[in-house]
Amino acid sequence: MPSVTVTVPIPVILDCDPGHDDAFAIMLAEGDPAVDLLAITTVAGNQTLAKTTLNARRICSVAGITGVPVAAGCAQPLVQPLRIADDVHGESGLDGPRFAEPTVDAVSGHAVDLMYRLVMSHPEPVTLVPTGPLTNIALLLTRYPDCAGRIREIVLMGGSTGRGNRTPAAEFNIHVDPEAADIVFRGAAPVTMCGLDVTHQALATPEVLARLTALDSELGRLCVELLTSLAGAYRQLWGFPAPPVHDPVAVARVIDPATVRCVDAHVAVELHGRYTRGATVVDLQPHPDRTVNAQVGMELDSASFWDRVIAAVDALGKRRSPEV
Amino acid sequence: MPSVTVTVPIPVILDCDPGHDDAFAIMLAEGDPAVDLLAITTVAGNQTLAKTTLNARRICSVAGITGVPVAAGCAQPLVQPLRIADDVHGESGLDGPRFAEPTVDAVSGHAVDLMYRLVMSHPEPVTLVPTGPLTNIALLLTRYPDCAGRIREIVLMGGSTGRGNRTPAAEFNIHVDPEAADIVFRGAAPVTMCGLDVTHQALATPEVLARLTALDSELGRLCVELLTSLAGAYRQLWGFPAPPVHDPVAVARVIDPATVRCVDAHVAVELHGRYTRGATVVDLQPHPDRTVNAQVGMELDSASFWDRVIAAVDALGKRRSPEV
Amino acid sequence: MPSVTVTVPIPVILDCDPGHDDAFAIMLAEGDPAVDLLAITTVAGNQTLAKTTLNARRICSVAGITGVPVAAGCAQPLVQPLRIADDVHGESGLDGPRFAEPTVDAVSGHAVDLMYRLVMSHPEPVTLVPTGPLTNIALLLTRYPDCAGRIREIVLMGGSTGRGNRTPAAEFNIHVDPEAADIVFRGAAPVTMCGLDVTHQALATPEVLARLTALDSELGRLCVELLTSLAGAYRQLWGFPAPPVHDPVAVARVIDPATVRCVDAHVAVELHGRYTRGATVVDLQPHPDRTVNAQVGMELDSASFWDRVIAAVDALGKRRSPEV
Amino acid sequence: MPSVTVTVPIPVILDCDPGHDDAFAIMLAEGDPAVDLLAITTVAGNQTLAKTTLNARRICSVAGITGVPVAAGCAQPLVQPLRIADDVHGESGLDGPRFAEPTVDAVSGHAVDLMYRLVMSHPEPVTLVPTGPLTNIALLLTRYPDCAGRIREIVLMGGSTGRGNRTPAAEFNIHVDPEAADIVFRGAAPVTMCGLDVTHQALATPEVLARLTALDSELGRLCVELLTSLAGAYRQLWGFPAPPVHDPVAVARVIDPATVRCVDAHVAVELHGRYTRGATVVDLQPHPDRTVNAQVGMELDSASFWDRVIAAVDALGKRRSPEV
Repeated sequence: MPSVTVTVPIPVILDCDPGHDDAFAIMLAEGDPAVDLLAITTVAGNQTLAKTTLNARRICSVAGITGVPVAAGCAQPLVQPLRIADDVHGESGLDGPRFAEPTVDAVSGHAVDLMYRLVMSHPEPVTLVPTGPLTNIALLLTRYPDCAGRIREIVLMGGSTGRGNRTPAAEFNIHVDPEAADIVFRGAAPVTMCGLDVTHQALATPEVLARLTALDSELGRLCVELLTSLAGAYRQLWGFPAPPVHDPVAVARVIDPATVRCVDAHVAVELHGRYTRGATVVDLQPHPDRTVNAQVGMELDSASFWDRVIAAVDALGKRRSPEV
Repeated sequence: MPSVTVTVPIPVILDCDPGHDDAFAIMLAEGDPAVDLLAITTVAGNQTLAKTTLNARRICSVAGITGVPVAAGCAQPLVQPLRIADDVHGESGLDGPRFAEPTVDAVSGHAVDLMYRLVMSHPEPVTLVPTGPLTNIALLLTRYPDCAGRIREIVLMGGSTGRGNRTPAAEFNIHVDPEAADIVFRGAAPVTMCGLDVTHQALATPEVLARLTALDSELGRLCVELLTSLAGAYRQLWGFPAPPVHDPVAVARVIDPATVRCVDAHVAVELHGRYTRGATVVDLQPHPDRTVNAQVGMELDSASFWDRVIAAVDALGKRRSPEV
Repeated sequence: MPSVTVTVPIPVILDCDPGHDDAFAIMLAEGDPAVDLLAITTVAGNQTLAKTTLNARRICSVAGITGVPVAAGCAQPLVQPLRIADDVHGESGLDGPRFAEPTVDAVSGHAVDLMYRLVMSHPEPVTLVPTGPLTNIALLLTRYPDCAGRIREIVLMGGSTGRGNRTPAAEFNIHVDPEAADIVFRGAAPVTMCGLDVTHQALATPEVLARLTALDSELGRLCVELLTSLAGAYRQLWGFPAPPVHDPVAVARVIDPATVRCVDAHVAVELHGRYTRGATVVDLQPHPDRTVNAQVGMELDSASFWDRVIAAVDALGKRRSPEV
Repeated sequence: MPSVTVTVPIPVILDCDPGHDDAFAIMLAEGDPAVDLLAITTVAGNQTLAKTTLNARRICSVAGITGVPVAAGCAQPLVQPLRIADDVHGESGLDGPRFAEPTVDAVSGHAVDLMYRLVMSHPEPVTLVPTGPLTNIALLLTRYPDCAGRIREIVLMGGSTGRGNRTPAAEFNIHVDPEAADIVFRGAAPVTMCGLDVTHQALATPEVLARLTALDSELGRLCVELLTSLAGAYRQLWGFPAPPVHDPVAVARVIDPATVRCVDAHVAVELHGRYTRGATVVDLQPHPDRTVNAQVGMELDSASFWDRVIAAVDALGKRRSPEV
């Protein structure tokens, strides 16, 4: 009798602060068949919690994601005031396209309570994919320490082994809530860090835009509008020829680990520097004082990455507007 | 028709880490008619959470406190490992007396959820009295930001305007969880700080012990045993002739504000020093950059304080063992 | 044959930043027969180096101190910009009296080179008495490490075991140049710290002013003018009923150690705090990790102190204007 | 009448802590005709001051550098204990070759006094090239602030715009004495930083070793021995296929600025981090709060660099052993 291999989708909760690149993380997580997207939770980061939650609902609405609960989490970092990235993402947090009133609602209840229920009730260990500041995840681990053992992995977008982007030393997501990041990296759940080392290889080149345009779907056109807006910000602020699309890289790592080559490392979050607060200090040669506490992404298979992202957008676009 | 003034007891939640002096805070809060003790919640601090929760149950059991829910909270500070005070409070956290198996159980559910429900459902604004590290209170404010407006006041034992006790600069409760303290002092709820300035005036002198002995009750004798054990630790560790009984001072402030003379001040928690982490930096001359964010206790009416404490112990002792 | 005990004056270099209270340190050091004042060196602190040097020359001129070299040292703290105390000492650094053009000049050459030559050439170990920021002393120890063994003791005015005066945590002299203070406390020469604990017991009360007035000398009247100006500043800034005259306390300790009761302690300088930079963290219970590195003044014999100060002013006043 | 262009050699003081790569800095500075090497000063860093001074004398002896004064400077960083790099440079600081007793002596007097005299007396502004910790340079600027205006430029080896080498965040020279580096970067003299960005492009490849061997001189062979020893350390410690030869890069920048392409930037030294102390935080987009205070090397013309280094070794080798 022939054996049959059935691949079960990986249960994932996406914790995000949309944000242009978070929008692509949502679409990849829902549009790729390898992922079972259990929930989308939101946090303050790129914009205020009210705006990131609205934006998550907008993306779900335009992408036809109707069966996934959206829940709002923390409106403030743990121990410092919120600093948003409206220079990159604009007043709305998703500047560029015009959005109609979203048709997808958020559920009531706090993000971390939803996360906890899903993590504890799912038959398989659940993967958390945070693509914003780590406030919600830190709160989950603090309030519900028993759930750490039920988390398969935390695959986060954030940090850098070298220079930052929000400051010379710190990447935005970690910089916004360094204490939350510290809690996550020191926590009991396994962590994979997809930082600027790999996300700066995820560039939305003209070729990527051309492929999205060629999908000839409403969602494809919206993606082009989002990336065009993002490109403008990165060009103006930092002279990038094409904008990095950070957040779906973490989702891609979950879908296919080979997409993001990682190394074992010790990651510490600098909480105390005058110029370096929020830096992820990555020791690539762990030693007895600093044992391995994370896998750190070093290289992206960008061809494979974009293939998956574009395929996901295509799938969602077709699901939403099935051809007659 | 003559007017009648009815004094309504003040609704209080006591968040503690017993601990010898926490035991007195519990007895004062329950034994004084001015307080309506809604709940006793526990946190890791003087000892581990398992031990502080057991100790809260022990004190309730021996003091006949049966109608007040006891709920356990956080087992770890927010962003650093737990450091306990077993040098002061011993292996059990309540060294000295021998306790029978407690007859009072803890309720299920997390301390902060119980706090939240009580705060939101009580007709009057509720006063929180934390006498341990501020982890639970910080978690409450982070998870349930809407409850800040329903909190009448947070009257905490902790900090100092001058020297510390756990380190030259830091008092124990703040030193154990500085980030939690920072969240509380920067939070929206009003804060009164009863620090070493006043608690070092709450000394269990031989006269106090004599008065407790003279109560001639089981509970009075237990109090003497607790204070004798505490006295030994303070004498040996720091040469105190009589031990300070810190925690009930915060309860006494709630019962009668005149017991603890306070001044308006700006309190910042030092999170970043090498030798000063966990210090409360109290600016007694607030200015535009550092506006008033707390009332800080400077002077204790120790006669009135001990009168109330001893009266509460007496009331509980009599309630438990009514004379025939 | 009867034995004769000859008391040899203690060779002292006074390193100061006049400053009202520095003026009294100068007068006590020169006017008391127990001290052989080898040099007066100046540093930026209460005012800029140009002004503190001018003020040292002014005090020497009015007090008839003509044989003691005055040499200017560092104009800036080691690693941070200079912050002066013109709120206390005024635009001139010695506001109050009107001074004629000084008749005493500064010598050429840098303060630390002069210190080094004097320390190395004197037959006896020399005592350094810094009453300003410790920049010059730190530079001396850094540039001339071999002189540490020739220094009898560094008896400094600065620091506190409790609250500060410039910030809630830091005393002015240490706050202005924390790295210099750190170098001194960790250095090879013995250190005695006369901080706010003792200098706040050196209050220029009305009785002190009356005694200075009663000297009926020009210098006595100038002292009264200085103290009256200082009193105004302390009253206005902090509500002191009488102003502390910090700096001569360190000189008094050299003259008669019994004037300032000291305890052994470990003193660390906080270099890294956000609110506590420049605090002296004094561990009164030194242990293996923090061995004794200083004697710390805890109690002033203020009667004896003022007797000596007033006697010194009297002696200088008479020397200058000998009765016919 | 034809005009004649005469190129005057650039007056340079080399402040170093030999160290294998410092040896090459010395040889390049003396062997290249574009430099007028005024003095070699030494500092504690790769090894103790006694050893780095001995090593400077050794290199001068074997390279026939007899007319350049060698003066020892600081034996300790300003405010922290010395940490040496014996893992890289060995017990002697120049492990590998066997050296005879040096024939070149050090002059008496402290390095910073010699520097000051040379800087003030030279008709042209002098360039300082520090290739070790910046302790001596900071002491020079602190003790002799008037000399800043006579310094043409400080071209230093140290720092990084990204990762460090001694810690994940800090390069060795800055890490050893962060306060000194801070003084230099905030000082009045212009600074060019040749950090790991460019020195990791200065690799002693097998081809470089072959060219040095082909010089067929005693000095060439000694260079090969030094580089072979260095290669072993870098291979074993960090897996480098060929070792970076950091220090001569700064000298090469002085000789021909085009060798090291630089950008304008703001460089701050992190003094306060827990994991990042000693990091150079380089803002490549200076703004009003952080104006340009340094030129920072980004790209090395390694072909041109090695041509110059090998030519200098060749010239010194021939000078020492002129062909018959």
